[in-house]
Amino acid sequence: MCQLLGMNSAIPADVRFSLTGFAARGGLTDHHGDGFGVGFFEDKACRLFMDTQPASTSPVAELLKHYPIKSRNVIAHIRKATQGSSQRLENCHPFTRELWGRHWLFAHNGDLKNYAPALDGVCLPVGATDSERAFCEILQTLRASSQREPCTPEQTFETLCQVTQKIACHGVFNFLLSNGQTMFAHCSTRLWYLQRQWPFSNAQLVDSELSMDFALTNVANDKLCIIATQPLTRNECWQQLEAGQLLWIEDGELIQKVQLEVSEQVKFQNAANLACV
Amino acid sequence: MCQLLGMNSAIPADVRFSLTGFAARGGLTDHHGDGFGVGFFEDKACRLFMDTQPASTSPVAELLKHYPIKSRNVIAHIRKATQGSSQRLENCHPFTRELWGRHWLFAHNGDLKNYAPALDGVCLPVGATDSERAFCEILQTLRASSQREPCTPEQTFETLCQVTQKIACHGVFNFLLSNGQTMFAHCSTRLWYLQRQWPFSNAQLVDSELSMDFALTNVANDKLCIIATQPLTRNECWQQLEAGQLLWIEDGELIQKVQLEVSEQVKFQNAANLACV
Repeated sequence: MCQLLGMNSAIPADVRFSLTGFAARGGLTDHHGDGFGVGFFEDKACRLFMDTQPASTSPVAELLKHYPIKSRNVIAHIRKATQGSSQRLENCHPFTRELWGRHWLFAHNGDLKNYAPALDGVCLPVGATDSERAFCEILQTLRASSQREPCTPEQTFETLCQVTQKIACHGVFNFLLSNGQTMFAHCSTRLWYLQRQWPFSNAQLVDSELSMDFALTNVANDKLCIIATQPLTRNECWQQLEAGQLLWIEDGELIQKVQLEVSEQVKFQNAANLACV
Repeated sequence: MCQLLGMNSAIPADVRFSLTGFAARGGLTDHHGDGFGVGFFEDKACRLFMDTQPASTSPVAELLKHYPIKSRNVIAHIRKATQGSSQRLENCHPFTRELWGRHWLFAHNGDLKNYAPALDGVCLPVGATDSERAFCEILQTLRASSQREPCTPEQTFETLCQVTQKIACHGVFNFLLSNGQTMFAHCSTRLWYLQRQWPFSNAQLVDSELSMDFALTNVANDKLCIIATQPLTRNECWQQLEAGQLLWIEDGELIQKVQLEVSEQVKFQNAANLACV
């Protein structure tokens, strides 16, 4: 399995603090050492940094810990390979494609079984992962609802609910998806959510000794949401999402949350996880 | 205008030597300080590093000078903006899209006038440049010749000749295009070409004191082609391409070179350039 990190902010924000904790899980405090990727949106376009080396030791990850890239939407992923050769770049998340004149980013944590969607060629996978196939099916479905012009945000979310429900029948499908404006997050088994807003406080990373007092760096109107496979900080109010929840987040706010049906496979897996605790 | 650098190699090669000379032109030895981008293919997928900072000072460019990424196809671009706001990421080359289950990379040096291709929505520009519009038209034309399966290399080159001829009517259209296997290069006004193969020798960068003895690092079967807006080294046998030439390069070899018609505008510009020398 893998780990996900997403950020959606009202104004461009620096995510180096969160990335530092997250990158440690790529081989240092956790075993997700099969490469990593981070995509930063700057308006409609995104910049993607990836490496097949573990995030805890990669020079690319090291650059990102020190180079401030401000962004309103970020998706990061550290990989523990389940499908697709681990050392191949084409299997590294996040994946990116263009739709309606914007870049889209997608990262997945999970495992889809017997999943071979009928892809018409407008968006085809480059690598061998179930994850990239799912991204292609999502974009193909969105494009089928409108070829050139973007759908309204409401239509986009409605279409995304339908295609997510369909794909989630195949197994565990925790994902983050963004077009630089909106962040969508779906939970099958494990995803946590945090909103940071005024009054800001001090936060202490789980995976490092580092702490940061956001009251010193943020102003009253700053507002952002962080979504992660596991909480990144010790002393903030993270909420665990429930299986089947799909979130629409924009400008650092939760706009809508819907409850989709949960497959028997996912129910079984969640029951097994609870039994292990 | 901008500067281009492309590399196609029989086996994965380290391009840090060439990139060091090229990056110096991004604000140090030349004035192309409006951002840069470098795309490295690893088989069918590419990794793109970009920055809106000048290549001569960007921390991302600094990383690339020291981090060896071996690749068989590389395209780099340093930007002096003509169309599209210079500090916006969406206007930075190279551009990337997926076609036939591979990534494709494209970078352009030139200026297309009155160029508004009819794009059907399968590939739309994210930014505001003539260059990205041209890339979208090229990919749309290739996809129209085959929706899902790759055309044969011969068909691909034939289609590319036709669409290049059409776009080049609008102005200066020096470009590099690669799908990770093949490198295509078109010259309107300025592009140089070099093949490095056995017996390898010492090369001295034009833009830096750095030199490298390739006889010490390469073996007999190594073979690569470098294409650049201006020769990167002082003491190697660079050949200047002629206006209208389109090259198909693969495995470090020139496979085919065709001569397309040259527009009156480009003939006029080339005559003016000669008159200036």
